[in-house]
Amino acid sequence: MSRPLILISNDDSLTAPGIAHLVRLMGELDAEIVVVAPASPQSGMGHAITIGHPLRLDKSAIFGEGVTAYACTGTPADCVKIAKHYVLEGRRPDLVVSGINHGSNSAVNVLYSGTMSAAIEAAIEGLPAIGFSLCDYGHDADFSHVGPWVLEVCRQALAHGIPAGTALNVNIPKNTSPIQGIRLARQARAKWQERFEQRHDPYRRPYYWLLGEFVNQDAGLDTDEAALAEGYVSVVPCQYDLTNYQGLATMAEAWQLALPPAGPAAAPPQPMPSEDYGPAAQ
Amino acid sequence: MSRPLILISNDDSLTAPGIAHLVRLMGELDAEIVVVAPASPQSGMGHAITIGHPLRLDKSAIFGEGVTAYACTGTPADCVKIAKHYVLEGRRPDLVVSGINHGSNSAVNVLYSGTMSAAIEAAIEGLPAIGFSLCDYGHDADFSHVGPWVLEVCRQALAHGIPAGTALNVNIPKNTSPIQGIRLARQARAKWQERFEQRHDPYRRPYYWLLGEFVNQDAGLDTDEAALAEGYVSVVPCQYDLTNYQGLATMAEAWQLALPPAGPAAAPPQPMPSEDYGPAAQ
Repeated sequence: MSRPLILISNDDSLTAPGIAHLVRLMGELDAEIVVVAPASPQSGMGHAITIGHPLRLDKSAIFGEGVTAYACTGTPADCVKIAKHYVLEGRRPDLVVSGINHGSNSAVNVLYSGTMSAAIEAAIEGLPAIGFSLCDYGHDADFSHVGPWVLEVCRQALAHGIPAGTALNVNIPKNTSPIQGIRLARQARAKWQERFEQRHDPYRRPYYWLLGEFVNQDAGLDTDEAALAEGYVSVVPCQYDLTNYQGLATMAEAWQLALPPAGPAAAPPQPMPSEDYGPAAQ
Repeated sequence: MSRPLILISNDDSLTAPGIAHLVRLMGELDAEIVVVAPASPQSGMGHAITIGHPLRLDKSAIFGEGVTAYACTGTPADCVKIAKHYVLEGRRPDLVVSGINHGSNSAVNVLYSGTMSAAIEAAIEGLPAIGFSLCDYGHDADFSHVGPWVLEVCRQALAHGIPAGTALNVNIPKNTSPIQGIRLARQARAKWQERFEQRHDPYRRPYYWLLGEFVNQDAGLDTDEAALAEGYVSVVPCQYDLTNYQGLATMAEAWQLALPPAGPAAAPPQPMPSEDYGPAAQ
């Protein structure tokens, strides 16, 4: 393979420690690196895009010579869009990586995650994409153990590809004990048990803080939560075709509706045509 | 069934015409109605949540007596969270409806849609949920034909339930020719063909507007796009388990990784336990 082109984004902003680690690691792959990351933190932005106002793009020397970097005023999904359609001037990245997020994006957190929305946006564009998250929420999180695992996942992706229409959600355990390996997993059935705390401002008007505890409702051994609990790096292939195909059949019966003309069986679960798939360079 | 409790939200804000239509229609179901909707338009917010600052909640008389309504300063997902965990004080809605969105949320638009994020957030909470969208982008969009179809979908949902872990993405054709009926569908493989237009502000600094054309890359007759093109209301059951189960097997082989301990076959595709499913009142 010739020198790969790797696009990097995140949701913690261009100045977060996690993205600096990712830039350094991608350098070890002898890659050409282009970074387009949010100008300000975008945690919890989900798959938001900016449609009501325009974006700004500011070139940055933060990662030194040899790394083209921009801060973008938009969301993580915006960053990938403007990178693909403006900054890269039509060049196709061999890999898009997002992160390394300060905090877990396992289980249902994938929906709220700006880190994963950048990766999923890239997958929609037909690009091989990976979101990396470290299960350590601190801004001073310890990234010292992540290098070999991030590199291993990226080397596999460059060599063997990622299924079409899919972005990988990679979570790495906190640095408390040695990593046991990499494990493929499904998204755990888990959720936030939430509540709102009412406070009052100095003018006696109420306001509400969202608080919550993460609850794993899933006893499966094949989940990302289980993998992380056992000290493995979890890798969940995430698709953006949200159709519940089994639900179609259930509903057809319960609601007494006809199934669609070409049934679910005829619907390819791989959302993108083959031109958009595959080992990045062949 | 006793008088159902219906929670209503949207992404176009509490003052949008679409939500007024939805409130009026739910009244025809003899439902108790609680509305918690964004204080300002939230189109394109995807599944964003507010974590960096608190929320405000302002009671509103916009829908007259008998309809409890609040404007919330957060995103659509925030609105559902604060409704469930604060406004409703532990009461469980029999149905959550979101919309009616001014504009299509078919195909991949479901990912960017604030309307659907409210519905999906409700599904995560184990509530039967439906997002309604009208394929007419105008703020003065013609909603005069939607009533019977919205009511039919809601009556079906109240009577026969919605598969667990699933929110329905309902799109209604623009009022140009008679609606042909309701059709179950899968999410079409389609995307925005995008570009950015560079402009310069009066200080000669560049800024960028996102522009795009929607392109349906899917010839299937069983898609939401196909249903809408033929004049049907499309109903796509959307799940928030993003796992690409087929992708797990593909990757295990291509990457030479072991499949997770309990394989995908053991993973129930219905993400929530049975207590969270079913006809709302039994």
